Amino acid sequence: MKITFIQTGGTIDKDLPKAVKGYAFEIGNPAVERILGKIKANFEYEIIPLLQKDSLDLNDEDRKKIQEECENNFNDKIVITHGTDTMTQTAKWLSEIKNKTIVFTGASKPEKFWDSDSMFNVGSAVLACQTLPPGIYIVMNGRVHAWDKVKKHQITGQFVEI
Amino acid sequence: MKITFIQTGGTIDKDLPKAVKGYAFEIGNPAVERILGKIKANFEYEIIPLLQKDSLDLNDEDRKKIQEECENNFNDKIVITHGTDTMTQTAKWLSEIKNKTIVFTGASKPEKFWDSDSMFNVGSAVLACQTLPPGIYIVMNGRVHAWDKVKKHQITGQFVEI
Amino acid sequence: MKITFIQTGGTIDKDLPKAVKGYAFEIGNPAVERILGKIKANFEYEIIPLLQKDSLDLNDEDRKKIQEECENNFNDKIVITHGTDTMTQTAKWLSEIKNKTIVFTGASKPEKFWDSDSMFNVGSAVLACQTLPPGIYIVMNGRVHAWDKVKKHQITGQFVEI
Amino acid sequence: MKITFIQTGGTIDKDLPKAVKGYAFEIGNPAVERILGKIKANFEYEIIPLLQKDSLDLNDEDRKKIQEECENNFNDKIVITHGTDTMTQTAKWLSEIKNKTIVFTGASKPEKFWDSDSMFNVGSAVLACQTLPPGIYIVMNGRVHAWDKVKKHQITGQFVEI
Repeated sequence: MKITFIQTGGTIDKDLPKAVKGYAFEIGNPAVERILGKIKANFEYEIIPLLQKDSLDLNDEDRKKIQEECENNFNDKIVITHGTDTMTQTAKWLSEIKNKTIVFTGASKPEKFWDSDSMFNVGSAVLACQTLPPGIYIVMNGRVHAWDKVKKHQITGQFVEI
Repeated sequence: MKITFIQTGGTIDKDLPKAVKGYAFEIGNPAVERILGKIKANFEYEIIPLLQKDSLDLNDEDRKKIQEECENNFNDKIVITHGTDTMTQTAKWLSEIKNKTIVFTGASKPEKFWDSDSMFNVGSAVLACQTLPPGIYIVMNGRVHAWDKVKKHQITGQFVEI
Repeated sequence: MKITFIQTGGTIDKDLPKAVKGYAFEIGNPAVERILGKIKANFEYEIIPLLQKDSLDLNDEDRKKIQEECENNFNDKIVITHGTDTMTQTAKWLSEIKNKTIVFTGASKPEKFWDSDSMFNVGSAVLACQTLPPGIYIVMNGRVHAWDKVKKHQITGQFVEI
Repeated sequence: MKITFIQTGGTIDKDLPKAVKGYAFEIGNPAVERILGKIKANFEYEIIPLLQKDSLDLNDEDRKKIQEECENNFNDKIVITHGTDTMTQTAKWLSEIKNKTIVFTGASKPEKFWDSDSMFNVGSAVLACQTLPPGIYIVMNGRVHAWDKVKKHQITGQFVEI
């Protein structure tokens, strides 16, 4: 089994890398690298650092790039790490891809934080990739959802069925 | 959706709680409590602190207790945290339970460790519970296995298909 | 022994608290609270959440506020958590306070990060408070410096003697 | 400035390194290595992995070894990481060393734990080394004590003045 991880940015990858005048968060290396470094993964994988943006900053060009990567990649199991604020918008761009299991996940706290939910979410996404039929899914907070059946709740930040 | 978590002990729960003469590891409170405390779980759950043992110490009486809990519990989605050394032995005791999705998981490093794999594994197990048909499974290192198709590799510690 | 901790902000306190549209870092609760919560402190303390700013944003009014708090506080052992970029500028405002041991410290990574240096630095500052004569000091990276004998190196981010 | 760190074992270094049948805690690599790896130390240091024992297991031969290392080492700033249960007993063996600042420290939770106090204590010890006159000290829970003025409280685990 092989999984392709695509980095787009979002909270999961937020870091503060500068030694001097490190004013604001920046998107660092893919959190997935560090997470898989801890788990002795029993599967093959590749990590594609495609985009490094907060999901509120993603534009159509970015989403087209994600779509093309998903379409052209030879693998049929894909996990996309992505900011939660616009996850469903990006998912819509992939809705015509019919032969792959594509799972969006992310985090409400950066992987760099010791109280992050990122390892849990990536663990869920890796499992969803293997057990779900082709389709576009969102995996967060211990749940899996079809991409077009949820929205992010504007107070709790959780995904709720619509 | 509701998930029942059953604590049996194992590395995932190892802790060093004593302030004085805290010589050796002990099994502490269920790691699952702390893990779910970080993820804003989007599902109902209960945690049953059934046993607190290294899995090398589990005996037939313990396994019978686990079996009875699984049989009698009203819920059909169960995650059992368990030491990896004898996970498949305990799973065998549950093999006659036909109407529930029961997932064993654990960790190679205690949840208390900052480089633990426990959040990843529990995240995987929670997802497996929702997406797999009834049966007894082992979820570790990013993979799901039918309980009777794997054994723990005696050098790497990973589960390998047999 | 009693120590007064004054929060001014800086990297040590950076957090990402919002569940929705949590775009940028914000200064959260004092990191010192969480740090002291882990160590079973064997001394009395108070924590004063005076300012919540990146140190590049501190202005004269803010520095006056810090100065007044230090002067008026009844305690003679004070630890100020502060961004490193302008630590020496703020220290200068306190240079007329002659009867207190005042120690600036901070972090190059937020306390929220699992690879943060914040606990080490606060541990150093707490010790410096007890063992040094009255004066204004900067404690970072395992060293203590008189405030007017160092500057922050613009590449490494460490404090170097001048 | 140069600091010599001597590892003797104790809770600070407890780890669970085995992939298979990792039943009990073992003393791993010096925690000080990992701690200094996070802080961009602004001083020179060496780490001497002298002993790897719970302090309840240290015997006279071990203590003689620690004494000889302290006497023969060319450096006059020494931090000894050590289990807290018998710290004062070992300190007594060093009480004739008059020209060095020797600081004992340790942890109530292993450095491997995310809620460990080890970074705080080592940060305190590093500072104590620089600011205190020659002597044998114990630094724990944010306090520094002359070695012969304290004992470990048998309920709280803290050091109390006697």
